Parts: sequence; C-alpha cells; structure tokens
Amino acid sequence: MICDGKLIYIEWHEAEIPWIKIFTKTPRKELTDASDEERTAIFHAITVCERTMLEYYKPEKINIASFGNYLPRLHIHIMVRFKDDSYFPESAWGVKQRESRLQLPSRRGFEDLLIAAMRCG
Amino acid sequence: MICDGKLIYIEWHEAEIPWIKIFTKTPRKELTDASDEERTAIFHAITVCERTMLEYYKPEKINIASFGNYLPRLHIHIMVRFKDDSYFPESAWGVKQRESRLQLPSRRGFEDLLIAAMRCG
Repeated sequence: MICDGKLIYIEWHEAEIPWIKIFTKTPRKELTDASDEERTAIFHAITVCERTMLEYYKPEKINIASFGNYLPRLHIHIMVRFKDDSYFPESAWGVKQRESRLQLPSRRGFEDLLIAAMRCG
Repeated sequence: MICDGKLIYIEWHEAEIPWIKIFTKTPRKELTDASDEERTAIFHAITVCERTMLEYYKPEKINIASFGNYLPRLHIHIMVRFKDDSYFPESAWGVKQRESRLQLPSRRGFEDLLIAAMRCG
C-alpha cells in the first residue's frame, strides 16, 4: 500500500516496470457505479500518479487501463513504459518482445514523491 | 465521428464490439500534457460514454484504456464487453477465445443517446 486515502487507496502491482493500481475503498464494478466524490478522487489520483511517474522515471510513455473482466471490481492500472522494457511497444499484457534488464531508480523515492503529491502520508 | 466538441472528439473504432475512442483536438502525448480544461472534458466524456454504453448495450463490463505506445498521441479507448464476445474475459487486444456472433442493437441508436447526453449535436 502506497497511499491510504479516505475514498481510494493506491498499491504496487508486482512487475518489471513500475506499475500501480488505484482502488475505491468501497468495491464498485464500473467507474459510473462509484459516487461522484469517488470518481473525482480517482481522476485526481490518475493525474497525480502520471505526473509523478513522468517526473521520477522519465519514461517513454504512461499506460492507463481499467478492465476488471476476471474480477469485476473497479481498479485502475497505471504503468510506466520504457522503450527497452520487455513488452514495449506492446501493452504490458501483450506479447513479450525481449529479455530486458531495466535499471530503475528506487521505489522508495517514487513513493515519497507520490505520498507528498497525493497528501496521503 | 460521433461527437465533435470544442476540445475533444469521439469516434468509432471498427471492431466486433462497440468500441469508441476519445481524442483531444490538439494532439497531446500524455493525459497530463493536456490542459486542465481538456482533461476535465476527457473525464466527463469517459463518464458519459460509459453510462450510455451500460444503459444501451447492457454489457458484462466496460473496459477503458489509454496506451499510445505505437502512436504517442493521447486517446482513450472505451470498449463494451460481453461474456460471449470473441475475446472475453481477455482484453480486446488479448488472445481470441472463441468465434462469436454477437447480436447487437444498432449503432445509430447508441449515437443518438450519446450525442444527446454529451450535448455534442
């Protein structure tokens, strides 16, 4: 858990690339099942997470997705993509393109920035 | 083109399932490269599109994604997913699960609802 807010929380998804997930504390199926206040919190968190990822990791691209087909609970994936990550330019769920050895700065540094930017400390 | 707004437009993506894409009129790379006004318009359009899709198609799930790894221009995919579509529960970019023959209501009916809900007529 990186950020434990009033309406949402943010946690790491274990992967080669930096990848976080945003959940509503109250389980919802779809984005429009969330309350206006929750949806505002989600959109704010997406914006702050992306900005912090771009600043900290200086990646090629940010990818964002909300599927939930296997587990119908609303959650938003935000993924930091690099030209030389194992799947780029395919999606992180796509066909593996190469064996990659990414050298990334520490997760802790990103967490500190995100906690400050989200004011979730 | 379904909806031609001041800051964004919405168009169909040709596919088996109902699938639309939201673009900013001014090309942007990332969501946070868009202006606050554009981002508000995007979040509003996502919400209205999803709500209209749920109402009109009564699907299993809505999927939302923003990648842009091949063409680094911000655009949001919104996909209507059915239990018996060709890829469910995989993502629409995933491994094909079956040969499907979806019986769907007319696109025109959805367009009329969306144009009214978005006030883009």
